[in-house]
Amino acid sequence: MSQYDLFTLGETMLRLSPAPNLYLEQAKQLDMNFAGAESNVASSVARLGLRTAWFSSLPNNPLGRACANQLRGHGVDTSMIHWSDEARMGTYYIEYGTPPRGIRVWYDRKNSAASQMTPDMLPLDVLRQSRRFHVTGITPALSDSCYATTQAALSFCQENGITTSFDVNYRSLLWDAPTAAAKLDPFCKQADMVFVALRDAVNLWGMPENIEEARIAAYERWGGCVIVTSGHQGAFASDSGQTPSVGSRPVDIVDRLGAGDAFAAGTLYGLLSGMPLQEAMNYGTGLAALALTTLGDLVYATREELEQVVMGSSGSLRR
Amino acid sequence: MSQYDLFTLGETMLRLSPAPNLYLEQAKQLDMNFAGAESNVASSVARLGLRTAWFSSLPNNPLGRACANQLRGHGVDTSMIHWSDEARMGTYYIEYGTPPRGIRVWYDRKNSAASQMTPDMLPLDVLRQSRRFHVTGITPALSDSCYATTQAALSFCQENGITTSFDVNYRSLLWDAPTAAAKLDPFCKQADMVFVALRDAVNLWGMPENIEEARIAAYERWGGCVIVTSGHQGAFASDSGQTPSVGSRPVDIVDRLGAGDAFAAGTLYGLLSGMPLQEAMNYGTGLAALALTTLGDLVYATREELEQVVMGSSGSLRR
Amino acid sequence: MSQYDLFTLGETMLRLSPAPNLYLEQAKQLDMNFAGAESNVASSVARLGLRTAWFSSLPNNPLGRACANQLRGHGVDTSMIHWSDEARMGTYYIEYGTPPRGIRVWYDRKNSAASQMTPDMLPLDVLRQSRRFHVTGITPALSDSCYATTQAALSFCQENGITTSFDVNYRSLLWDAPTAAAKLDPFCKQADMVFVALRDAVNLWGMPENIEEARIAAYERWGGCVIVTSGHQGAFASDSGQTPSVGSRPVDIVDRLGAGDAFAAGTLYGLLSGMPLQEAMNYGTGLAALALTTLGDLVYATREELEQVVMGSSGSLRR
Amino acid sequence: MSQYDLFTLGETMLRLSPAPNLYLEQAKQLDMNFAGAESNVASSVARLGLRTAWFSSLPNNPLGRACANQLRGHGVDTSMIHWSDEARMGTYYIEYGTPPRGIRVWYDRKNSAASQMTPDMLPLDVLRQSRRFHVTGITPALSDSCYATTQAALSFCQENGITTSFDVNYRSLLWDAPTAAAKLDPFCKQADMVFVALRDAVNLWGMPENIEEARIAAYERWGGCVIVTSGHQGAFASDSGQTPSVGSRPVDIVDRLGAGDAFAAGTLYGLLSGMPLQEAMNYGTGLAALALTTLGDLVYATREELEQVVMGSSGSLRR
Amino acid sequence: MSQYDLFTLGETMLRLSPAPNLYLEQAKQLDMNFAGAESNVASSVARLGLRTAWFSSLPNNPLGRACANQLRGHGVDTSMIHWSDEARMGTYYIEYGTPPRGIRVWYDRKNSAASQMTPDMLPLDVLRQSRRFHVTGITPALSDSCYATTQAALSFCQENGITTSFDVNYRSLLWDAPTAAAKLDPFCKQADMVFVALRDAVNLWGMPENIEEARIAAYERWGGCVIVTSGHQGAFASDSGQTPSVGSRPVDIVDRLGAGDAFAAGTLYGLLSGMPLQEAMNYGTGLAALALTTLGDLVYATREELEQVVMGSSGSLRR
Amino acid sequence: MSQYDLFTLGETMLRLSPAPNLYLEQAKQLDMNFAGAESNVASSVARLGLRTAWFSSLPNNPLGRACANQLRGHGVDTSMIHWSDEARMGTYYIEYGTPPRGIRVWYDRKNSAASQMTPDMLPLDVLRQSRRFHVTGITPALSDSCYATTQAALSFCQENGITTSFDVNYRSLLWDAPTAAAKLDPFCKQADMVFVALRDAVNLWGMPENIEEARIAAYERWGGCVIVTSGHQGAFASDSGQTPSVGSRPVDIVDRLGAGDAFAAGTLYGLLSGMPLQEAMNYGTGLAALALTTLGDLVYATREELEQVVMGSSGSLRR
Repeated sequence: MSQYDLFTLGETMLRLSPAPNLYLEQAKQLDMNFAGAESNVASSVARLGLRTAWFSSLPNNPLGRACANQLRGHGVDTSMIHWSDEARMGTYYIEYGTPPRGIRVWYDRKNSAASQMTPDMLPLDVLRQSRRFHVTGITPALSDSCYATTQAALSFCQENGITTSFDVNYRSLLWDAPTAAAKLDPFCKQADMVFVALRDAVNLWGMPENIEEARIAAYERWGGCVIVTSGHQGAFASDSGQTPSVGSRPVDIVDRLGAGDAFAAGTLYGLLSGMPLQEAMNYGTGLAALALTTLGDLVYATREELEQVVMGSSGSLRR
Repeated sequence: MSQYDLFTLGETMLRLSPAPNLYLEQAKQLDMNFAGAESNVASSVARLGLRTAWFSSLPNNPLGRACANQLRGHGVDTSMIHWSDEARMGTYYIEYGTPPRGIRVWYDRKNSAASQMTPDMLPLDVLRQSRRFHVTGITPALSDSCYATTQAALSFCQENGITTSFDVNYRSLLWDAPTAAAKLDPFCKQADMVFVALRDAVNLWGMPENIEEARIAAYERWGGCVIVTSGHQGAFASDSGQTPSVGSRPVDIVDRLGAGDAFAAGTLYGLLSGMPLQEAMNYGTGLAALALTTLGDLVYATREELEQVVMGSSGSLRR
Repeated sequence: MSQYDLFTLGETMLRLSPAPNLYLEQAKQLDMNFAGAESNVASSVARLGLRTAWFSSLPNNPLGRACANQLRGHGVDTSMIHWSDEARMGTYYIEYGTPPRGIRVWYDRKNSAASQMTPDMLPLDVLRQSRRFHVTGITPALSDSCYATTQAALSFCQENGITTSFDVNYRSLLWDAPTAAAKLDPFCKQADMVFVALRDAVNLWGMPENIEEARIAAYERWGGCVIVTSGHQGAFASDSGQTPSVGSRPVDIVDRLGAGDAFAAGTLYGLLSGMPLQEAMNYGTGLAALALTTLGDLVYATREELEQVVMGSSGSLRR
Repeated sequence: MSQYDLFTLGETMLRLSPAPNLYLEQAKQLDMNFAGAESNVASSVARLGLRTAWFSSLPNNPLGRACANQLRGHGVDTSMIHWSDEARMGTYYIEYGTPPRGIRVWYDRKNSAASQMTPDMLPLDVLRQSRRFHVTGITPALSDSCYATTQAALSFCQENGITTSFDVNYRSLLWDAPTAAAKLDPFCKQADMVFVALRDAVNLWGMPENIEEARIAAYERWGGCVIVTSGHQGAFASDSGQTPSVGSRPVDIVDRLGAGDAFAAGTLYGLLSGMPLQEAMNYGTGLAALALTTLGDLVYATREELEQVVMGSSGSLRR
Repeated sequence: MSQYDLFTLGETMLRLSPAPNLYLEQAKQLDMNFAGAESNVASSVARLGLRTAWFSSLPNNPLGRACANQLRGHGVDTSMIHWSDEARMGTYYIEYGTPPRGIRVWYDRKNSAASQMTPDMLPLDVLRQSRRFHVTGITPALSDSCYATTQAALSFCQENGITTSFDVNYRSLLWDAPTAAAKLDPFCKQADMVFVALRDAVNLWGMPENIEEARIAAYERWGGCVIVTSGHQGAFASDSGQTPSVGSRPVDIVDRLGAGDAFAAGTLYGLLSGMPLQEAMNYGTGLAALALTTLGDLVYATREELEQVVMGSSGSLRR
Repeated sequence: MSQYDLFTLGETMLRLSPAPNLYLEQAKQLDMNFAGAESNVASSVARLGLRTAWFSSLPNNPLGRACANQLRGHGVDTSMIHWSDEARMGTYYIEYGTPPRGIRVWYDRKNSAASQMTPDMLPLDVLRQSRRFHVTGITPALSDSCYATTQAALSFCQENGITTSFDVNYRSLLWDAPTAAAKLDPFCKQADMVFVALRDAVNLWGMPENIEEARIAAYERWGGCVIVTSGHQGAFASDSGQTPSVGSRPVDIVDRLGAGDAFAAGTLYGLLSGMPLQEAMNYGTGLAALALTTLGDLVYATREELEQVVMGSSGSLRR
């Protein structure tokens, strides 16, 4: 039996935020959290009961330790983290506002420990023991060595029969669209499954704005299993001739961030639990709905609560 | 002249809650309050200017004292409370979430001081000096001795000409529906006035889902004065051939809990102040509207503010 | 070159408020801020990059100093403030509630240092060096000596060729409508530009409730440039034969207070920057939209953020 | 039997304070409490189990109501309070600092409701039903009408055989020492018992700095029972030929304010419970010790906890 | 190689506390933590770099999960926890005060999930894979089934060659001294190592008050290795003819609770790392010193920080 | 007349800190402040009533703006700040602990905007208009270009007759002692006045540990006016044959950081106000005493409060 159901790789950052509706410029206190696309997925899948691991490089200081503590608290295995005595913690500041103000983010992530990951740091022994591997397009965008690390991990999985998924997650502050399109394309081809936001499909590869057409274009380009997502329309997949889709759920949005990661986590949880793709995507939109009602990236839901949302029975108070 | 306008009996619990939108599982701080259906009514009616008393058993420790302080601060007479050196404080945890998450409640109320009340603890001398007595279906659900205590209080009132009201308030975590239906039926018959949520009328006694039909069914079953309530539709009463009703008010809901108690409190305040039932129910929906915009069970409104809501003139800022 | 683009005069008060949705009566902590119609305008215009000054009298204690610090922090020149060793800080308490509860305000402003301003305190040397002067109808309402001070400032500007604007801002807790109408009318005539809420135009001078008709009536009464505003309908101006107007913007309202001041600030910023009135009013409604999404009176927006709102491009997260 | 064991009269103010060690000028949040010398005494004595009442005038707004709620919560009867629709809440700001910074206080108490009390407001019916009356030298310092009210209350007690106590409590910000000395002297003579700080005895009436000599001087001047107190030395009394004294207790001081009121409360509690003066003063220093370890004026101790301190057995954790 | 360096067994409770210096009775917010003697030890030893596990029964609700998350976050293996759908979370309330007020604790721990542990729940497979087992005298005091569980675990270790340690930790609120003495005596004899507070040695078994004599008495009674501790005097051991001792360290005490557990953790860490007892006890007093300066039971120190304290070099700021 | 009394140059950082006694690793919230040696001096001197300016480079984002707002709020002229669109905000984390834990600081300051200052950014026009210039040894340690900038500023002052002061302030995390000694020596010689901690004098230049001898050694090495400081012993100067000294003041230390800057600020304030050095140093130790009782680097004292400390009359509460 494999040691892990899901192995992930990426950067987790210190996330500092003033209270909702306050401007960062006026804040006197900041809430302190840790968030990263891949560790969000690992945490959510671990909370739902599967065995997950996360690999990265963290600074060997209280901020790095607090990050590892948080992930470990959710049940993610953090024992293979690379600890750096020199590099810093990637950090970002986030400000919540209602329209016409929007969420605003300021990154201070250059020279982070994670951006200095190299392929030789990869714990291949552990990766070999995993059923699935997941990574996003943020990791290769961090630095050349992170790009090489992502490449090495995906190739290793391919060679060792470990199923891979790749979430495009384009970050315009890290690289421009043409560069990202060129550099991420091979990963999309290589991965067994691709998650891509409709917005990114259009911007990076000029795919159609119609989501049904976009999934065809993506499938034609990358093959395997592709899932195109749109906050308003839901998720549309194409996989070996089947084209399952799920609509988005009605939600009172509290915080948009983390919904994409939650969708990936719910879907991967479903697949790892043996569900067909359609049902797995239902778990994906269910977890995304819970993420949208949660301040911060991480959903503290239990499997039971997720199942109630999936079955549409939540929201009524029992007392 | 009677000493009290309203005498109530029931359990008040410690209510611990994380900040809105946080999961209890992620909380590092909890807000501390005290709430109970009957003491909510007593507090609101006292705040509106009448003389009220509340009887219960509380643990003789800082939690019990803080509970009594809070009620006394609103003007409720707490001098007859039974203090227990052994028993514990009933406690519950409450988590607020927006849809599809809902409000969730975890009770830790077993073996509370209140659940150990017995009929001989009742301060009958004081009860005798009261104009009205109010109790809910939660109190008899706490334990056999609490059932007997409720029974004793209602019978004493009947014998001494004290008007009684009973709010069904079914709690599925305390007993199942058939048991509750059987055990609460006699109290509904005995009380001069019954408040019942449409939902409970349907679930417990199989009354019609149509609220107008439900009030007829309730009146036929219990006689006296019955008021059937529904958050969306308002309140429909039947009393000696008259069938007054009031719609619900437009409200930006902040917290659903406590609205039912506020409706009872407003209605009882109106009746005790000499209003006809229809007008009293208007005070009931007015106070419920204020409760829905208040975090926590208790409404800090003044009579003046309530009257503005009843007359529809509130909401405009005067400066 | 003038030393200041905008010179303002008025009272800034200590503003104490419980957390949103809490009643003041139940609060255990109060947030501490400072706000005043004219200093709000001076702060916003300074934040947008122009040179502004504010004159008032403040108590020579930590509250007065904290007030000056806050304004100075936003870039307002506070060096000419009159410091009073005797008088107190004007104070108000504000409670936020959702409908049918509304915002409620309790003033404790009598005998404040600002209310004891006299014409001889005016720093005429500095005023002479300013391009524009702005004051609201609150200042003359504070006391007879404040009325005289407002009068002296407006006359001095008229004599020295400094453009003036006057925001009616009727405060019913300071004086009754007929008195205010009579006393403010000369200022409206004297000022080069008048901002008046439709509500005040109707209540004080019996102008038509139709906003387009009201601007005609106002222009006929006072001449110059008049701008009639209404939260729902936007702003309608009449100026030398032209009648520019702007609609209100869609906003998720967090706090209504300060929106009028923000409209004046945005408009004055536009005019001082050389924009035509129509475009300046667009900056006015843009800044008002940001103010409506901000807790507290003051908008911490930058010129860049304001320009995004004006051009309708804000709200999308870049990361 | 009398209705109240202790009746008090005086002003209770809103007390706003930043967190310890912060300057008021830098604060963004203020803690909100209510405190007053006489209501502190009434609250403490009520908490210890006796029946107390407090009379004053409060503004009819949320601040006045919150003040009454707090006192009522501790068990003080507040039903006879005079509610003023016009006057304001006396307010003060307090800043804690360690040496060489000290505690600093800024008063904003002019024109408060309490300062407008008049003799005809006194609830003489209730006062007549009380065993003891207590007032401090702050009350007559508030205004001429408060002086007259104090005078009327003390005379009424004298005529009706109600034992009176007077705590000098000189406030240099309200009046100068010679005036206070002249105006308070008659009250000290008239009261059955006088509490006076050694510092006040020296400053106002030129009594000796030696505390043992001061008590002789005070007794010679005023007769009755006098208690001279000094934080470092304890309390020295002279009463009908007896001269009991108690030393101060070792304490880790958290907040000096309120210790004098606690000493008076503990001593009065002891006397009302039938203890000899020496033992009562022991309860006084015990309660003062608890007050010194409490942030804020009010001690939340129970009689049991006080008795442990008096007997020197507290401080050990039982678990 | 064994799977765990240290296996522990016991109850961890929800720990609710107001801010320092506030009375629980006056609190409006409570800090939420989790603490238990054995899990404190497991957490500290895990933080220092060894592999630890903790076994208990927790309620299957957010409180139980948050408890497990916290321990897991520190690196403790919690995978074998028994989850109870019925039982509640043991809870206690703690109030900090400076002398003459002391720390006060109110327990609400009856009927907790942990108190319902039975021997058959023990994960013997895992225990078998551990180098050391540690338990305190609190666990057997919880219930008869917990007593049997403790007994079963100690016997299993004895039979399987796993080194055991037992910390007496008498809790007077759970059982009386004679009962505890009789019931704990066999465990002290059976364990390879006993930690006992001098206070408990005296109260339970009448050992001498002189700590050097007490260690002789304990050694004579129980054999093996005994360590007698006293906050003021340090720790005195007796082990196979050797009698190492360490003094206590100078500390500015912030919170006394948890120091005993930290001493045990530091000592066990030292022994598991191969140090002689004397040096291990130095790590024990070092960790206890850090615990005394930490609010809450758990020390967030790293091995590096602990080593600095042990070597006396900490306290100087490097920047 | 010069435009500024004091011109300073250096880095101000974002300062993030958990509540006192909490470990950074366990924090969930961080307090947000801004601090820097030179801006601390500029702020304090501005608060005391003189005209000061501060030059640096800040990132053009909310953190940079909040930093400028804070300084401007204290009255420091920030109009010449260089705004960087690319570089980041220097940041540090600070954790307070009582012995044997100490204050701990983690810097994350590499690549800050300030570290990228170059000589050509210097606002020489403004510097020319200043009476005094102050800089510390931290600024040249930031980068080569910062070293050159410091050099250029000091030389410009020398050429233009502006009095200069230099505070050694060795930072071991930025460079090693021999490098710092060699690089800072010329600045010490060049400056008209040198502040040096005894600790730095010993470590960097091997001066005697005896403070009286150290001042002789420093004076012989650098000439001009030298002031050697030691927290415990006070400050010892040597200036043109005079050797004034002041002892340290008794203080309940709340936070050691910022005391050195406060000493420099107080001394410079005194000198700029025309006091002899001895008296100026008295203002220095007075302000340092206030800084030691303040959480955070900045003293919010007024000149009046400082004068009370200097004259030894503070600490008594007037009310």
